[in-house]
Amino acid sequence: MKIVQKYGGTSVADAERVRHVASRIAKRKQEGEEIIVVVSAMGNRTDELIDLALSVNPSPPPRELDHLLSTGEQASAALLAMALHAIGQNAVALSGRQAGIISKQRFGDGRISRVEVGRIEEVLEEEAIPIIAGFQGITETDEIVTLGRGASDLTAVALAIALEAEVCETYKDVEGVFSADPQVVKKARKIDEIGYEEMLEMATQGSQVMHSRAIELASAHDMPILVASSMTDVPGTLIHGGNIMEERNRVRGVVGDTDVAKITLRSLPDEPGIAAKIFEPLATAAISVDTIVQNASEERLTDLTFTIAESDLGAAEKIMPSICTSVRAASYVSDIGLAKVSIVGAGIQTESGYAARMFKSLHSAGINIEMISTSEIRLTCIVAKDRLDEAVEKLHREFLPDED
Amino acid sequence: MKIVQKYGGTSVADAERVRHVASRIAKRKQEGEEIIVVVSAMGNRTDELIDLALSVNPSPPPRELDHLLSTGEQASAALLAMALHAIGQNAVALSGRQAGIISKQRFGDGRISRVEVGRIEEVLEEEAIPIIAGFQGITETDEIVTLGRGASDLTAVALAIALEAEVCETYKDVEGVFSADPQVVKKARKIDEIGYEEMLEMATQGSQVMHSRAIELASAHDMPILVASSMTDVPGTLIHGGNIMEERNRVRGVVGDTDVAKITLRSLPDEPGIAAKIFEPLATAAISVDTIVQNASEERLTDLTFTIAESDLGAAEKIMPSICTSVRAASYVSDIGLAKVSIVGAGIQTESGYAARMFKSLHSAGINIEMISTSEIRLTCIVAKDRLDEAVEKLHREFLPDED
Repeated sequence: MKIVQKYGGTSVADAERVRHVASRIAKRKQEGEEIIVVVSAMGNRTDELIDLALSVNPSPPPRELDHLLSTGEQASAALLAMALHAIGQNAVALSGRQAGIISKQRFGDGRISRVEVGRIEEVLEEEAIPIIAGFQGITETDEIVTLGRGASDLTAVALAIALEAEVCETYKDVEGVFSADPQVVKKARKIDEIGYEEMLEMATQGSQVMHSRAIELASAHDMPILVASSMTDVPGTLIHGGNIMEERNRVRGVVGDTDVAKITLRSLPDEPGIAAKIFEPLATAAISVDTIVQNASEERLTDLTFTIAESDLGAAEKIMPSICTSVRAASYVSDIGLAKVSIVGAGIQTESGYAARMFKSLHSAGINIEMISTSEIRLTCIVAKDRLDEAVEKLHREFLPDED
Repeated sequence: MKIVQKYGGTSVADAERVRHVASRIAKRKQEGEEIIVVVSAMGNRTDELIDLALSVNPSPPPRELDHLLSTGEQASAALLAMALHAIGQNAVALSGRQAGIISKQRFGDGRISRVEVGRIEEVLEEEAIPIIAGFQGITETDEIVTLGRGASDLTAVALAIALEAEVCETYKDVEGVFSADPQVVKKARKIDEIGYEEMLEMATQGSQVMHSRAIELASAHDMPILVASSMTDVPGTLIHGGNIMEERNRVRGVVGDTDVAKITLRSLPDEPGIAAKIFEPLATAAISVDTIVQNASEERLTDLTFTIAESDLGAAEKIMPSICTSVRAASYVSDIGLAKVSIVGAGIQTESGYAARMFKSLHSAGINIEMISTSEIRLTCIVAKDRLDEAVEKLHREFLPDED
């Protein structure tokens, strides 16, 4: 069976863990699997490199930053290959370029355009294990480009698809995908299987377990992803597209996210076309708008409120004055004291009762709902940031009561 | 004027020094020079990476080690480029591969076969400064290969030749080439100019200032090398091939080297062809033999003594038993308590009197001479390791008396 395995930074944080991961890989290889490995940079190496960059240039040029950051994964790939040699298993470290990860720049946020698997297949033919630097690719103009934070997951999924692997196994510092963050909800439980759409909603609504672009890519090519721990042999969570009949119409997880900022445009004329005048400039600046609510304030004037990621607020505030002018709004205000809490599960939006139960549950805990948004498989409430953990716990108790 | 500048590890050891080097480079660029920069890894980064490698594999496979070590220079090149951007100077970091350093493996000890300068010239045409990772190249089969310790000097000289630069400036943690190691001889003085051959002898006899392969390459293409400090503006030492008339027939420097081991084969039959039986197997094992002395011991039996680098002794001891057998020697002994002291200067071997003065000077200090070797521009004595510094100082006083 051909398997792509991805090991995250915590799994290869020091020499001892690198040796441990090597022994796990060699064991699977000896069991007869054909293994391709993708690694992240060791531990906090990427953050250390970013700090180093900032110490010579407060706003490092993205091309040079990518040139620097890509060394983290190249180094960990070489070390893991050496550790495999040390236990008698042939292995060959490959940079993103050598592995044929052809990408389109933007620097710092590249997109994989295709994978040329020739070199990897040569390594496999020699019964060696290719160890590939995650998070990076090469452009058609021979520039090193990184694929965004946490994008080693994406490298692994792209390789699994290109190599027609059976599964993409991603090893992390958690045992799988949980029904809520175990640090917030003690009774959170590991989910054995989850569909791509549900996992994608959990990722985009704040779960850090899996990179959302990796889930999207896996979904488009129906590549199953296993999320498991490199420290234990506990079975993890399988993300796949198969029918999970018994799990439909049930809440699968409760996700909280504090990366939320709210912007309100005050007293603007309620005319056709104002939405485009507001949201097109934001889209051009690559700022994703999440929830949008419009309230009449006075006659023919309206207030319009929307949320964005708090990390995008700086960029948004640069263009808000010109948006205000173009839509003739009286003013705008921004607020960062908010968070999102979401319940995720296929079918819960169409099934009656979930929304009412969610609102009632939060209300009974005295948590005020500022805004609401929904998708086909998700219900999200915007609440005060300082009530978020309480909201997650309350909803987990409501929708995922202890099964014992 | 087109100039290749090379900055060593100490010159870019931390963020502050990287910024300092950037300001030096930008200044020269503003003065109208066309600058190409080669950098080493920051400070002790290469040693740190080697330690990391050894912690996962006591004998790391050379290909994987090169894959790891090459990240050191790639990172420092990116940081230096960022530091130049921070002060308004466009710069582009290039890996050895991107800079077109095409090399032949052996891993860990690659040889530059040619330089494809297209990408560097593109960067220069944009008025940007190419910052090139030293110490590394790419093979025709797309493998990263390093060029041996200290080989960033070699990268710089190769680029200077390929780009037809006027001079290759190498910036180090010393102010130039000295007449002896200033840590041993307080009155050692900086040499303003020195010929390639003299510099080469000083390098191969123990001076750490400049990589000997870099000097050989510069000599073959008559590329002048400046050795200077990145910390001061003191003029350094110019290594070149021009006539330095007034400096002929004079001792230019006194060099000590403790990397010496002596091997003596005892009581072997004095027959034709024994030298080949001894030295061919050593050459095959890539062990360079330095001085050779043969003494008759008993009738028709002889003792044969030779020196090698102490760092090669382990490899030599693996093959000495079979050499003993093949030449029917009674036994062999090795000795690591030795060192070499050399005086270097064009013409000193042919000029009478230098050898006699050297022996007399060491003798008067009570330093025993174990063996002697010579080249056209060098006289070397093997002495006890614990008398080396004394020997260097004594000979410096004899041949390079204080000029004041």
